[in-house]
Amino acid sequence: MPEVRVIIPEDLDRALDALIRAGFAGNKAELTRAAITHFLSTIPTQLPKGYDVETAFSPDGRVFQLEYAVEAVRRGGTIVGVCCPEGVVLAKELRKVDPLEITPNPFFKIFELHESIGIVYCGLQTDGYNIVEEAKKQVELLKKEEDEADIETLVKNMVLFIQPFTQRKDVRPLGVALIVGGIDSKNNPRLFLLEGAGGVKENKACAIGLGGEESIGILKGGYKADLRLEEAIGLAIKAALREAKKPENVLVATIDAKTKAFREVTLEEKERMWRQIFP
Amino acid sequence: MPEVRVIIPEDLDRALDALIRAGFAGNKAELTRAAITHFLSTIPTQLPKGYDVETAFSPDGRVFQLEYAVEAVRRGGTIVGVCCPEGVVLAKELRKVDPLEITPNPFFKIFELHESIGIVYCGLQTDGYNIVEEAKKQVELLKKEEDEADIETLVKNMVLFIQPFTQRKDVRPLGVALIVGGIDSKNNPRLFLLEGAGGVKENKACAIGLGGEESIGILKGGYKADLRLEEAIGLAIKAALREAKKPENVLVATIDAKTKAFREVTLEEKERMWRQIFP
Amino acid sequence: MPEVRVIIPEDLDRALDALIRAGFAGNKAELTRAAITHFLSTIPTQLPKGYDVETAFSPDGRVFQLEYAVEAVRRGGTIVGVCCPEGVVLAKELRKVDPLEITPNPFFKIFELHESIGIVYCGLQTDGYNIVEEAKKQVELLKKEEDEADIETLVKNMVLFIQPFTQRKDVRPLGVALIVGGIDSKNNPRLFLLEGAGGVKENKACAIGLGGEESIGILKGGYKADLRLEEAIGLAIKAALREAKKPENVLVATIDAKTKAFREVTLEEKERMWRQIFP
Amino acid sequence: MPEVRVIIPEDLDRALDALIRAGFAGNKAELTRAAITHFLSTIPTQLPKGYDVETAFSPDGRVFQLEYAVEAVRRGGTIVGVCCPEGVVLAKELRKVDPLEITPNPFFKIFELHESIGIVYCGLQTDGYNIVEEAKKQVELLKKEEDEADIETLVKNMVLFIQPFTQRKDVRPLGVALIVGGIDSKNNPRLFLLEGAGGVKENKACAIGLGGEESIGILKGGYKADLRLEEAIGLAIKAALREAKKPENVLVATIDAKTKAFREVTLEEKERMWRQIFP
Amino acid sequence: MPEVRVIIPEDLDRALDALIRAGFAGNKAELTRAAITHFLSTIPTQLPKGYDVETAFSPDGRVFQLEYAVEAVRRGGTIVGVCCPEGVVLAKELRKVDPLEITPNPFFKIFELHESIGIVYCGLQTDGYNIVEEAKKQVELLKKEEDEADIETLVKNMVLFIQPFTQRKDVRPLGVALIVGGIDSKNNPRLFLLEGAGGVKENKACAIGLGGEESIGILKGGYKADLRLEEAIGLAIKAALREAKKPENVLVATIDAKTKAFREVTLEEKERMWRQIFP
Amino acid sequence: MPEVRVIIPEDLDRALDALIRAGFAGNKAELTRAAITHFLSTIPTQLPKGYDVETAFSPDGRVFQLEYAVEAVRRGGTIVGVCCPEGVVLAKELRKVDPLEITPNPFFKIFELHESIGIVYCGLQTDGYNIVEEAKKQVELLKKEEDEADIETLVKNMVLFIQPFTQRKDVRPLGVALIVGGIDSKNNPRLFLLEGAGGVKENKACAIGLGGEESIGILKGGYKADLRLEEAIGLAIKAALREAKKPENVLVATIDAKTKAFREVTLEEKERMWRQIFP
Amino acid sequence: MPEVRVIIPEDLDRALDALIRAGFAGNKAELTRAAITHFLSTIPTQLPKGYDVETAFSPDGRVFQLEYAVEAVRRGGTIVGVCCPEGVVLAKELRKVDPLEITPNPFFKIFELHESIGIVYCGLQTDGYNIVEEAKKQVELLKKEEDEADIETLVKNMVLFIQPFTQRKDVRPLGVALIVGGIDSKNNPRLFLLEGAGGVKENKACAIGLGGEESIGILKGGYKADLRLEEAIGLAIKAALREAKKPENVLVATIDAKTKAFREVTLEEKERMWRQIFP
Repeated sequence: MPEVRVIIPEDLDRALDALIRAGFAGNKAELTRAAITHFLSTIPTQLPKGYDVETAFSPDGRVFQLEYAVEAVRRGGTIVGVCCPEGVVLAKELRKVDPLEITPNPFFKIFELHESIGIVYCGLQTDGYNIVEEAKKQVELLKKEEDEADIETLVKNMVLFIQPFTQRKDVRPLGVALIVGGIDSKNNPRLFLLEGAGGVKENKACAIGLGGEESIGILKGGYKADLRLEEAIGLAIKAALREAKKPENVLVATIDAKTKAFREVTLEEKERMWRQIFP
Repeated sequence: MPEVRVIIPEDLDRALDALIRAGFAGNKAELTRAAITHFLSTIPTQLPKGYDVETAFSPDGRVFQLEYAVEAVRRGGTIVGVCCPEGVVLAKELRKVDPLEITPNPFFKIFELHESIGIVYCGLQTDGYNIVEEAKKQVELLKKEEDEADIETLVKNMVLFIQPFTQRKDVRPLGVALIVGGIDSKNNPRLFLLEGAGGVKENKACAIGLGGEESIGILKGGYKADLRLEEAIGLAIKAALREAKKPENVLVATIDAKTKAFREVTLEEKERMWRQIFP
Repeated sequence: MPEVRVIIPEDLDRALDALIRAGFAGNKAELTRAAITHFLSTIPTQLPKGYDVETAFSPDGRVFQLEYAVEAVRRGGTIVGVCCPEGVVLAKELRKVDPLEITPNPFFKIFELHESIGIVYCGLQTDGYNIVEEAKKQVELLKKEEDEADIETLVKNMVLFIQPFTQRKDVRPLGVALIVGGIDSKNNPRLFLLEGAGGVKENKACAIGLGGEESIGILKGGYKADLRLEEAIGLAIKAALREAKKPENVLVATIDAKTKAFREVTLEEKERMWRQIFP
Repeated sequence: MPEVRVIIPEDLDRALDALIRAGFAGNKAELTRAAITHFLSTIPTQLPKGYDVETAFSPDGRVFQLEYAVEAVRRGGTIVGVCCPEGVVLAKELRKVDPLEITPNPFFKIFELHESIGIVYCGLQTDGYNIVEEAKKQVELLKKEEDEADIETLVKNMVLFIQPFTQRKDVRPLGVALIVGGIDSKNNPRLFLLEGAGGVKENKACAIGLGGEESIGILKGGYKADLRLEEAIGLAIKAALREAKKPENVLVATIDAKTKAFREVTLEEKERMWRQIFP
Repeated sequence: MPEVRVIIPEDLDRALDALIRAGFAGNKAELTRAAITHFLSTIPTQLPKGYDVETAFSPDGRVFQLEYAVEAVRRGGTIVGVCCPEGVVLAKELRKVDPLEITPNPFFKIFELHESIGIVYCGLQTDGYNIVEEAKKQVELLKKEEDEADIETLVKNMVLFIQPFTQRKDVRPLGVALIVGGIDSKNNPRLFLLEGAGGVKENKACAIGLGGEESIGILKGGYKADLRLEEAIGLAIKAALREAKKPENVLVATIDAKTKAFREVTLEEKERMWRQIFP
Repeated sequence: MPEVRVIIPEDLDRALDALIRAGFAGNKAELTRAAITHFLSTIPTQLPKGYDVETAFSPDGRVFQLEYAVEAVRRGGTIVGVCCPEGVVLAKELRKVDPLEITPNPFFKIFELHESIGIVYCGLQTDGYNIVEEAKKQVELLKKEEDEADIETLVKNMVLFIQPFTQRKDVRPLGVALIVGGIDSKNNPRLFLLEGAGGVKENKACAIGLGGEESIGILKGGYKADLRLEEAIGLAIKAALREAKKPENVLVATIDAKTKAFREVTLEEKERMWRQIFP
Repeated sequence: MPEVRVIIPEDLDRALDALIRAGFAGNKAELTRAAITHFLSTIPTQLPKGYDVETAFSPDGRVFQLEYAVEAVRRGGTIVGVCCPEGVVLAKELRKVDPLEITPNPFFKIFELHESIGIVYCGLQTDGYNIVEEAKKQVELLKKEEDEADIETLVKNMVLFIQPFTQRKDVRPLGVALIVGGIDSKNNPRLFLLEGAGGVKENKACAIGLGGEESIGILKGGYKADLRLEEAIGLAIKAALREAKKPENVLVATIDAKTKAFREVTLEEKERMWRQIFP
């Protein structure tokens, strides 16, 4: 979250100290946040009620519902993608492994869209699964129409599927982010990051979700253009887990550029790598 | 419900004591809840009216109507599912057995969707029954199209049926949770938990509804991977009833992995087990 | 209506006494109700305006429009159903017999849906009549498709007809309750209670409407599993009239398990029974 | 309008007297009404704005728009129906006979729907005429489908036409009441009262509109089961005019049970009767 | 506009005098209107905001949007119709004759719908022209279907066209009034007044618009059942102009009962008559 | 903009002077406007929020959105039309000639609809261009259906295209004005002014837009019925430019009655005339 | 942003100084902005809430949502177009080059619509990509229908595609600006600027987005009618980068008038030019 620094008059500072000593708050930051919140509520042109709930522009050109949809994504776990000459790696953090649940959840895992394309989402579950199913339909359609489901064409169609939800007022936007990875029709490994709130990028490596910013830091630290697939798996696991959680807390899948095949990384492989990453 | 603990200044504490002595409230928790309620009402950016009633994102990425739909489920009875190598058990708590009503209510019971699949819901009755009927249609369709109604494919289709209700603004979300259990096309017992508010999981055992959290505790205590079907029935009854209510207060059905058949557990069986569980 | 009891401080009590002596209110209950009403109006998160008017969830998972629809039913007369081995009895209280009106009102009476099925509604008249006509269409459809209009299948279809009105925001819910009784395709007498607000039950005996709770008490007192049809008629009349109104104030119809025929009970029969019930 | 009686403290009474002496109001009732109005405006849960304008349930199960539609009917003139063994009489009060207008107004009169069925409406003119035209279409349809336009079937179809307007939120309810009279397919004279707000009754005699309550009193006083058609015409004129207005202020039509023919009563006949009724 | 008379206390009167002397208002009526306006704004149950803007019933059964549509008509010029045994006259006041505009405006004049039917509207221009075009389509349709476009049938169809706009909430009502005159299929001259707000009448003579009430007074003064067509033209001109404006300020057209032909009255004729009317 | 003059009491005047001396405002008009604005905000029945934003009637029969659409037109440049026996002239002021833009803007110029019809719009650009394209379609349709695109028929169809936007609530009205000029099917030069807010007129000469009122004054001063086409061009340029801007600041096109051809006036011609008009 | 200068009374000035000295604000501009914001919030007729969020006219004829959409465009990077006799240059600023992203982003780059037409957008990504795809469809359609995709016809169709989003209330406007450049069917280089908020122009050179105004200044300084294509590329790079960022921060493409071919400018070329522009 962004930080705000502010110089205040001494009188104000003394008043804050008094409130803290009296136990009304733990520290000045807490009081300041409350003050800002209250102040904003008195300025109608900055935060009028209407913007929050409707998919419309605010005076400074923002669409609040899209920004809030991004927050919905931040509430989910972290997903990671790494692309290297030998293929693509997709990873998904499992925040809590419940002993009564089946892992991976067949509706919230890394999906094989097609033998050479994988997809993983974070955010609202049914929204995400809905897009995955839409992507599957698109793959079938592309195979029929063009004899081949090229990953870039697929992502294009997904962008066009998502767009209306960022503009219509009779539905809320989709509260998800997706990472799509695979081998394209020219045999190149490709990796895309797609947001329900409307953004789309092609990446060498990417991460999004609850721990997204920390994970991106890890990726920036470890990414090299000539990573081996093995190394890319290790980097993805590190970015997804961030701390020394257990190997069970991460799902990993690869699409190999040579075989053009989607493969889930086994627990044994993950355990071996995990011991190297968090010795 | 979540608990909040808070350190308060001595002056505030004395004021609370005075109000209680004067009879304005029974205890400090009561006063504190009232204070929180009132305080929230003064902060417009946290709880603006619009979010409550419309299916839209709040600034922190939540969709309040979906969370409220979860509350609707909590107002119903408890439903339970247990999956073991020998099959699946579904159970449903009947909170009150009215002598003038027929039990089980043919519209609010454990339904046989298909010879090898059962379904049970809790929450709003017509919402739940509507999804059950939708599931029946899907079963018919799958049988026609694929000669077989695989339980995982069925649950997929139900997720896609539920999703739009979590996103559209011209209807409220569905106020139900469903447990679907059965034998899949590879002869494996499977168990799924599906929420109208949008979540879906595959489970070894699960419970949801009014007494859901206590029931989950019982399941966690008693679940083992190698449970016999008989034992699974016992565990399900215990989780559904929680306390020593009568055997009439629970409905139980099983889908046996061998026979692949849905069967309602008789009152005699339930009585026998009940005597073992609550001796 | 629910009763609330509350302990108040002595000072408050004296203030209430003073207000009553001054003539501002008749008693403390009146003052307390006014105080509660006013207090609730100051708590935005409990009773925000939006919930009342829109078919949406409240924070505690309620759909107020559905609860208000139940109130609409309570404003109508009372309807009663009794099921016994020899058949089913349906009864309807006529609150006021207007000398200028034709009784029974052909649009607000006990309807013969089919030779072996009867239906009666209370609440908003056109809503109720609309569902009755829908039910007639369903009967015709079932006869065509399945050669037989089984009462349980019919009630299923009616539930599915009612459900969307409990969920859509562009119409209000249906403000009615219906009792459907008849002989099913296996020759068993069956009785169902169906609410526009969304509930559905199968019953041995049931009552709903203005005097519903008192009527249910009478049914609970008088119902036995082996009632003769004659006795069931008497019990239904007693539950519908509650007090010694005239025999003209009740409509009664039976569906006999043997003949499988719908029959309206004549005024002579009603008078004879009435003299026995209210001697 | 309902009367409210209230005991007030002496101090309040003196204050009211002072205000009246000072000229602020003409009498205490006026002041009390103002006080009630103001008081109600401070109680949000009783009269929230939303109910008035939307077709939704209020907390006590009322649909205000339907009640207001009834008020729209009360703003029109009075319409009357009388049914007797020899036939049916329909009458319509013309409140003001404008010398520049053609009387009867061809769009606001007693309509012949069919040789043996007549209809008359009061309330919003285009709403009423719209239903009359709908009824004509239904008559044509019934003739085609069933070779005969039975009056009860016709009224049924009109009820089903009116119902959605009492439930949908994208249109207002119909602001009319209609009286339909005629000879049914079994040669019986029949009379129905149908309200846009949703009620429907079969009557021996009925009246609705501006002077409806007074007219009903006249009908109750004069109705007998064995009225001759001639007598029924007189009773209908008396109920429609109430006071000694001119014979031109009433339209009358009969449907004779023998001839099964709709006939408008001539001015000469009306004048002759009028001299008997208001001697 | 309606007048209100009110007795006020002397103290109030003195206060009003003081305000006028101080220059705050020109007279007491001005102050009183302001006071009423302000007072009404404090009574929520009488004038809630919702009624104004939505096509819904107010508590006393009025539909404000329809009443406001009537005001829109009053903002336009005046239109007049006179019917006599020899034919029908339609007239339209041109409030201002702009030297740069073509008169008559081809979109806002007296239209020939059919050789024997004329129509003229006042109020919102595109609304009016839209209905005129709709009427032309109806004429074509009637000619096709019934070989003849009878004026009464045509007006019926126009009423049915207008009705939904008085009831739907997704459009505003039509802001126009129309006078339709012509010779019917039985060779009788007929004259109809039709309002977008929903009323329809058949008239001997009628006027509506800005100067409508004064014009009606002139018509009432001059109308006789046996007017010659020539005299009817004179009466229509007088009612439309009211004061001695120029002959150019009125458009006049006749439909002669003998020739059954629509004819625009020439400027020479108008000038000749004008000199007789305003000597 | 309209001017308001008002007599105020001396006390008020002195207070205003004091405020100006103190620097709170530049002059009394500024203070008065602020006072009026504030005063209006306190009178709910005159300017309720709803009217502004919705296409509905206000209590005095106005549709504010239509009046605001007129303001949108006033924000654009000025367009002018002049009709004379030898043909029609259309002119368009270019407020600012940007050196980086192509002039005339191919989407905001004088368009040739058809060899003998021209059209020019001012106001919102895409709205205007949309109607121009609609007009082109109409021309094609008319040519197909009637072998000829008569200008009056074309304008009729454009009026009917515009009308729904003045009445529907799900779109805003069109924010444009259009001048259509050409030679009709009887070889007469014709000129029409059409507003998105709903008005339509036939004119000898007309102007609308930012400088509309001043331009109309120039037209009224210079128009004669027997203008030569050459003179009409001069008058149109003068009315469009008003002051001695450069010849590049005006676009001019003519439709000659003899040739029936649309022709853009060249810069050389404009320069020559400009030197005569602004010597 | 626009600047406002204001004269204030000395007393006010002293008060502002005191507030700054006390530390409540950094300078007078800050205080003044806060004051203006607060003042505006008190004037209901100028900034009522409704306008912001709905696509409707404000009293002065503005459509705020369209103006806010322009702000959304200003939040993106800068795009530039330059047209010269030898061809067209399109450029796009990349504000930040992320080492983990692929540059250019395949969904946010300069697109080849057709061999002789290029397009580039700034603003909301999915909105922009959606229009690009729409444009591609139009190109395919034009090729099919007219054997050729002329750039002006294409832009026309794009304007018509964009218009409804500026008028409908059920979607927000498109938050993008597009520059379309290419060679038309007469072999002329053409350049168009198209805004989602509704404007469209043909240009010699143009720039829009975050640094739009500064970029336009650079274009005005450097544009000459006889620029060589090489020089145009240099000018476009300078306008897009504005300051001495790296050559990687700009994408450039040309459509050569001779070859009629779209070509992306290579990094080497950009580097060479960049050294000349920012020596």
